[in-house]
Amino acid sequence: MKKLVLTGAAGRLGSYLREPLTKMCDELVSTDRVDDIGTLYPGESYVQADLSSLDAMLEVIKGADMVVHFGAIGDEAPWDDILQSNIIGAYNVWEAAYRCGVKRVVYASSVHAVGMHLKTDTIGLDAPHRPDTYYGLAKCFCEDLASLYWDKRGVESVCMRIFSCAQATNARSIGTWLSYDDLIHLVERSIDSPVVGFTVVYGISNNDRAVVDNSKAGHLGYRPKDNAEVFAKAVFADTPPLDNKDLANLCIGGPFATVELGNSGVAALGVVDDRKET
Amino acid sequence: MKKLVLTGAAGRLGSYLREPLTKMCDELVSTDRVDDIGTLYPGESYVQADLSSLDAMLEVIKGADMVVHFGAIGDEAPWDDILQSNIIGAYNVWEAAYRCGVKRVVYASSVHAVGMHLKTDTIGLDAPHRPDTYYGLAKCFCEDLASLYWDKRGVESVCMRIFSCAQATNARSIGTWLSYDDLIHLVERSIDSPVVGFTVVYGISNNDRAVVDNSKAGHLGYRPKDNAEVFAKAVFADTPPLDNKDLANLCIGGPFATVELGNSGVAALGVVDDRKET
Amino acid sequence: MKKLVLTGAAGRLGSYLREPLTKMCDELVSTDRVDDIGTLYPGESYVQADLSSLDAMLEVIKGADMVVHFGAIGDEAPWDDILQSNIIGAYNVWEAAYRCGVKRVVYASSVHAVGMHLKTDTIGLDAPHRPDTYYGLAKCFCEDLASLYWDKRGVESVCMRIFSCAQATNARSIGTWLSYDDLIHLVERSIDSPVVGFTVVYGISNNDRAVVDNSKAGHLGYRPKDNAEVFAKAVFADTPPLDNKDLANLCIGGPFATVELGNSGVAALGVVDDRKET
Amino acid sequence: MKKLVLTGAAGRLGSYLREPLTKMCDELVSTDRVDDIGTLYPGESYVQADLSSLDAMLEVIKGADMVVHFGAIGDEAPWDDILQSNIIGAYNVWEAAYRCGVKRVVYASSVHAVGMHLKTDTIGLDAPHRPDTYYGLAKCFCEDLASLYWDKRGVESVCMRIFSCAQATNARSIGTWLSYDDLIHLVERSIDSPVVGFTVVYGISNNDRAVVDNSKAGHLGYRPKDNAEVFAKAVFADTPPLDNKDLANLCIGGPFATVELGNSGVAALGVVDDRKET
Amino acid sequence: MKKLVLTGAAGRLGSYLREPLTKMCDELVSTDRVDDIGTLYPGESYVQADLSSLDAMLEVIKGADMVVHFGAIGDEAPWDDILQSNIIGAYNVWEAAYRCGVKRVVYASSVHAVGMHLKTDTIGLDAPHRPDTYYGLAKCFCEDLASLYWDKRGVESVCMRIFSCAQATNARSIGTWLSYDDLIHLVERSIDSPVVGFTVVYGISNNDRAVVDNSKAGHLGYRPKDNAEVFAKAVFADTPPLDNKDLANLCIGGPFATVELGNSGVAALGVVDDRKET
Amino acid sequence: MKKLVLTGAAGRLGSYLREPLTKMCDELVSTDRVDDIGTLYPGESYVQADLSSLDAMLEVIKGADMVVHFGAIGDEAPWDDILQSNIIGAYNVWEAAYRCGVKRVVYASSVHAVGMHLKTDTIGLDAPHRPDTYYGLAKCFCEDLASLYWDKRGVESVCMRIFSCAQATNARSIGTWLSYDDLIHLVERSIDSPVVGFTVVYGISNNDRAVVDNSKAGHLGYRPKDNAEVFAKAVFADTPPLDNKDLANLCIGGPFATVELGNSGVAALGVVDDRKET
Repeated sequence: MKKLVLTGAAGRLGSYLREPLTKMCDELVSTDRVDDIGTLYPGESYVQADLSSLDAMLEVIKGADMVVHFGAIGDEAPWDDILQSNIIGAYNVWEAAYRCGVKRVVYASSVHAVGMHLKTDTIGLDAPHRPDTYYGLAKCFCEDLASLYWDKRGVESVCMRIFSCAQATNARSIGTWLSYDDLIHLVERSIDSPVVGFTVVYGISNNDRAVVDNSKAGHLGYRPKDNAEVFAKAVFADTPPLDNKDLANLCIGGPFATVELGNSGVAALGVVDDRKET
Repeated sequence: MKKLVLTGAAGRLGSYLREPLTKMCDELVSTDRVDDIGTLYPGESYVQADLSSLDAMLEVIKGADMVVHFGAIGDEAPWDDILQSNIIGAYNVWEAAYRCGVKRVVYASSVHAVGMHLKTDTIGLDAPHRPDTYYGLAKCFCEDLASLYWDKRGVESVCMRIFSCAQATNARSIGTWLSYDDLIHLVERSIDSPVVGFTVVYGISNNDRAVVDNSKAGHLGYRPKDNAEVFAKAVFADTPPLDNKDLANLCIGGPFATVELGNSGVAALGVVDDRKET
Repeated sequence: MKKLVLTGAAGRLGSYLREPLTKMCDELVSTDRVDDIGTLYPGESYVQADLSSLDAMLEVIKGADMVVHFGAIGDEAPWDDILQSNIIGAYNVWEAAYRCGVKRVVYASSVHAVGMHLKTDTIGLDAPHRPDTYYGLAKCFCEDLASLYWDKRGVESVCMRIFSCAQATNARSIGTWLSYDDLIHLVERSIDSPVVGFTVVYGISNNDRAVVDNSKAGHLGYRPKDNAEVFAKAVFADTPPLDNKDLANLCIGGPFATVELGNSGVAALGVVDDRKET
Repeated sequence: MKKLVLTGAAGRLGSYLREPLTKMCDELVSTDRVDDIGTLYPGESYVQADLSSLDAMLEVIKGADMVVHFGAIGDEAPWDDILQSNIIGAYNVWEAAYRCGVKRVVYASSVHAVGMHLKTDTIGLDAPHRPDTYYGLAKCFCEDLASLYWDKRGVESVCMRIFSCAQATNARSIGTWLSYDDLIHLVERSIDSPVVGFTVVYGISNNDRAVVDNSKAGHLGYRPKDNAEVFAKAVFADTPPLDNKDLANLCIGGPFATVELGNSGVAALGVVDDRKET
Repeated sequence: MKKLVLTGAAGRLGSYLREPLTKMCDELVSTDRVDDIGTLYPGESYVQADLSSLDAMLEVIKGADMVVHFGAIGDEAPWDDILQSNIIGAYNVWEAAYRCGVKRVVYASSVHAVGMHLKTDTIGLDAPHRPDTYYGLAKCFCEDLASLYWDKRGVESVCMRIFSCAQATNARSIGTWLSYDDLIHLVERSIDSPVVGFTVVYGISNNDRAVVDNSKAGHLGYRPKDNAEVFAKAVFADTPPLDNKDLANLCIGGPFATVELGNSGVAALGVVDDRKET
Repeated sequence: MKKLVLTGAAGRLGSYLREPLTKMCDELVSTDRVDDIGTLYPGESYVQADLSSLDAMLEVIKGADMVVHFGAIGDEAPWDDILQSNIIGAYNVWEAAYRCGVKRVVYASSVHAVGMHLKTDTIGLDAPHRPDTYYGLAKCFCEDLASLYWDKRGVESVCMRIFSCAQATNARSIGTWLSYDDLIHLVERSIDSPVVGFTVVYGISNNDRAVVDNSKAGHLGYRPKDNAEVFAKAVFADTPPLDNKDLANLCIGGPFATVELGNSGVAALGVVDDRKET
């Protein structure tokens, strides 16, 4: 692996990935729309670029072997914002990847593409799309876009449906946590698998109470190590009984299942920034 | 049913629907972006409006009971065009429908949302999205949008995956034909069904060689009457042997399975206007 | 077929079956708990007997080839009543059938065994039990009882999940109607099929908008002829828009999906006797 | 269609097909191992050839567009006989077809490839192989052979799992009958379908009590017209009660489900020649 | 968790649960129909009560947060006994739970609800009911009852299909063992899971040869630790070859698959009390 | 277990099994067509015999409890060779097993019975046959043969679909490796399981990137311990990017998916003998 491009490098999850990604390639090109992203890691360079510009994407992706695409609004937002960043931006990434002969896009999809499914169904990877927000709708769009680019143009994709990649501090996250280490492990496997075609996989840790079943993505070799059960006792002790008629407690999308479309899930919940859902 | 709105009223299929729709409601408001659509039918009025404007959609949809949404580019097209008409336009329709308290959107989805599936699989309605073009990708988007608006906002939708609604003059259409009468019947059932929630259905006639299975949409009551088999002998007599290694012959999306993204399927095939794929 | 026993002969559906059943056997023994059931048909005799007594059932079933079991409370009722008639009574019938060497029980099960499933799912015969009332719960019990008696004791059963066997006068029944002729046809096939083992089948007419899929019971040869669509226009004209958030409109069990347990669905709806749900 | 080859032209079913096949091509080459097959139809020629010789098959198939392969032992038989005719003979046909550039093999597979499945399961085309005899085992082999030649060499096949193609004179056949007209219709569709890849289809008439479900082969356009129900009353009147613990009555393979391997099913049943199972 | 009620506290499995349950709540109310259950654990009280009395159940359950329902005949028994304890008793528990506002019933269901399924099918949680005894039939009834109370009244349930919770001393138990520790773990998760709706789960240890697949209950977080394989060598050394035509060896219900209905499985097998099947 | 017969004892995998098998029985009879197989292990005897002779198989199998059948050509080969060794030879083994009253055949089937399935589908045991070679076709045949002998004659079989049982030295094997220890473990479980009926299982190690899902064979208790991931880093470092349009990289059959029928997969790849595919 010579050159990797990371979009959304200034974002919360992108920031975590920068260092590990430098170890998986000769050259990591980090990109985001901010001016700079602080001290670079050995082997890393930074290019300021806007996802909304296909030309900018062509410029930054040129010569890359793969693109790790985390650049997008990371929360529910008004439609126009989602449209610009998460839909048009994604098109620009895949189209640039295709034109530049990139082999694969490793993409931060989300549980919210299927967030309206019931937790008690423990769905697998064959469950249909069932988005819970504009944010989730855009993830659905990107998965279908990835399917199209594989079928028609031979660009591979791994769509990682990331769950709760943040501290596991509420009851839902005991089932939905994705540790940073497991995220890195998942990205690694998504990169080093020789052939992936179009693969969708749940990005969730090895939680006792994991709410989804990854067995149809076995070929990818994602074997998470962390388990939110270690936090369960403390978290449950602080949790009042949950209303079992509330979709936020019944659906795997959690609070996104009830948040009004276009309103920030985070804001609606009053959680701190580190709790931001991906 | 008091008031129905028909978008895309100047389009090929929209034009066919105008008269029948006037019989299903007290007042039909036809809309499109052209200046006028010719002589109006009794009970019909015309409003020029652009799908790309949410305000325009709000204006035209206000007071409607249901919207029959056929307005969009009806063929493969460059991404930017699909984005404007088929994605942003669709958002405007559903959002306006929601804000105006509309009960249901009856939507012209397309086989091209699942066009890369193999004809020999005779897929049902549980097959995953597998778009064959930007055009098909936008149909996937709209289906997911419809799912979201039902789950989160209680706006119902019927997504009719229209197949070959034109004269059955080539070999593929013997399996994929949708007669105009059956289209009208399907739209009728989509409108008069008391409750539909989020329903997807294949818009295909009762062809002997129908390439899909509608049994999971039985509740809608769509029972097509026409059968392309009556054209089969004549069409096959004019058809040279088909290349069975060509995806255009293997996939239910037909020529869209091989057309280059963003290029018109129609243009690529050199077919006359009446053959335009929906 | 020499001797058939019909339980519930004084009930609404039982009454309809008496004459047709006399034509399918040499001797029909009709039974119920009332004193008499009026004029008998040629070949018919009547025995007053109570389902709650195993001895009585043994007496009446002795020497029969098959039992057509329609005897039970035909509506939602308090638990104690359902327990006596629909659970204990059913045990007595199957146990007596077994002890008397009867080949098969043809049983009036009901849609209400699966009434909480969504209409828009168009479920098949592989859907799990999902009762909507005590009445439906007892139907589930009888199906499992029938399964047990086949697996362990070789008594065959056909469990006919009867839908709306009454005049089709409301919107739901356009999808769920079972005509009397189709009921008779279904009972005939359930009787004359050479081997049925344990078979479950939906008792529903050939309605355009049938809400379930019988394809897994094809071997039984039930091919309904009637279609409630002939009533649709008149019924819908009288129907105000249905609330699509009301489970009574979303679930195939209809009003039973919302009626309080133990309360009569009929009473709750204020419908006339002929409309009684089976 | 210029040239068709029919193997097994002297067999019971092959004989029925000769005339209809002459109407589907310019030139029909009938072949079998007997000296002659009587008067030829216009457009038909006869070549004596032995399936067990690859050279003979190459000779007869050369220049053909398609092969209709009915040549094999048509009943259960000792292993060595099945091996020669039904396994080695089939290999020779597909291999010759491949070497000669033939587009498609239309093959007389059989219910006995799945004969041990229960009648009450009404299996579809996704049921696994479950042969009931050496005869059925060879059918399984040929279906897998056909799959291999499509996947690896682009030779198409339609494997028609023929049921009871003879007079419907026993209880089982009321469910399993295939009329001669429907057989011809099925062969026609297997030939004139533009692209079939590897398709398996049940060869069964439109019997009310059909024991299998063909919905996954919808693309082939096989729509049988005949229905064994017209014989049901007469046949059942002559049928004593069937033992429902006997696999011959429970399995779709019928008497083959209990016949000893290598013994003729026909002989075991004492039926006349016309009743021979295919 | 303030108050838990345990029914069947004097039974074999109930006895094991008393101490662990005291650690999961402030107050454990143990109940059974015997006079006393010996020395109480800290936080435990005992109430003599009969399941067959709804009033008694209302009395004991009043004020509870959850009920752990293990009270019932723990073996096959005559119908009348099963009816009283396992069916009517269960109704009383759920009805009382509902009336008292209890959040959840944690229920000792059993493998025998699906005992007639084949071991070699390794069924999941989507397999249909297939009871092997009256005992199993009552378990099916309770699961459907639990489904009803969730759908209609919002009372949650976890139905734990307990396998062989006793010493693993015969060949079958190498596949079906449930260790006491794993039982306790399963009950814990059934209690501390924030939302369970209606959940069914197999109560089986992490045996190498586990005969069922729990993947559809992943959300519950049941991760058994024990493995009967440690007993395999010794047990198999003492086991004569098993008859592979005997349903007791083929079905997951084991000896219950062949025991006569109403006869004790234990008695039929001559096993000691500790081997009693749950 | 008194007497075991091992066929193919001189083959690569057979040689590995000889010693472990002696520990699972009193008497191991190893057989192959070579003159001798070197020093025998305690409890082992050798009989030279040819699979192509039923008499020879009857002689060697007489008195055996089980047969471990590894004798066959272990690679793609011309049809005539596969026919003799892998088809006729297999028939002789099962037929002799039946005639000699053998309880079970433990059979070396292969991934190549389903080799044309896509790696990215992570198929389970319910995937249909999809052979990639004559070699794989013969494996399909043997599985169906085993199914037949169980259904009709009560001879049990475990069909182990062995993957890459050799050093893991190429990229594909990181997903498909089967270590020798795991092979031995699998054979042990296939022998010591009390009842197996007809069981198919994937013979693959516990690789992170295992390309198939064994959950439907859970009852067998196969729990592999080894994991090819330990070789991944080194192997990938030596692997140039794989062509993701090449079926050899997309299909689980690997190079067999593209090798010409009848040509050795090994030879085609130029690999050393130890790399031979089973």
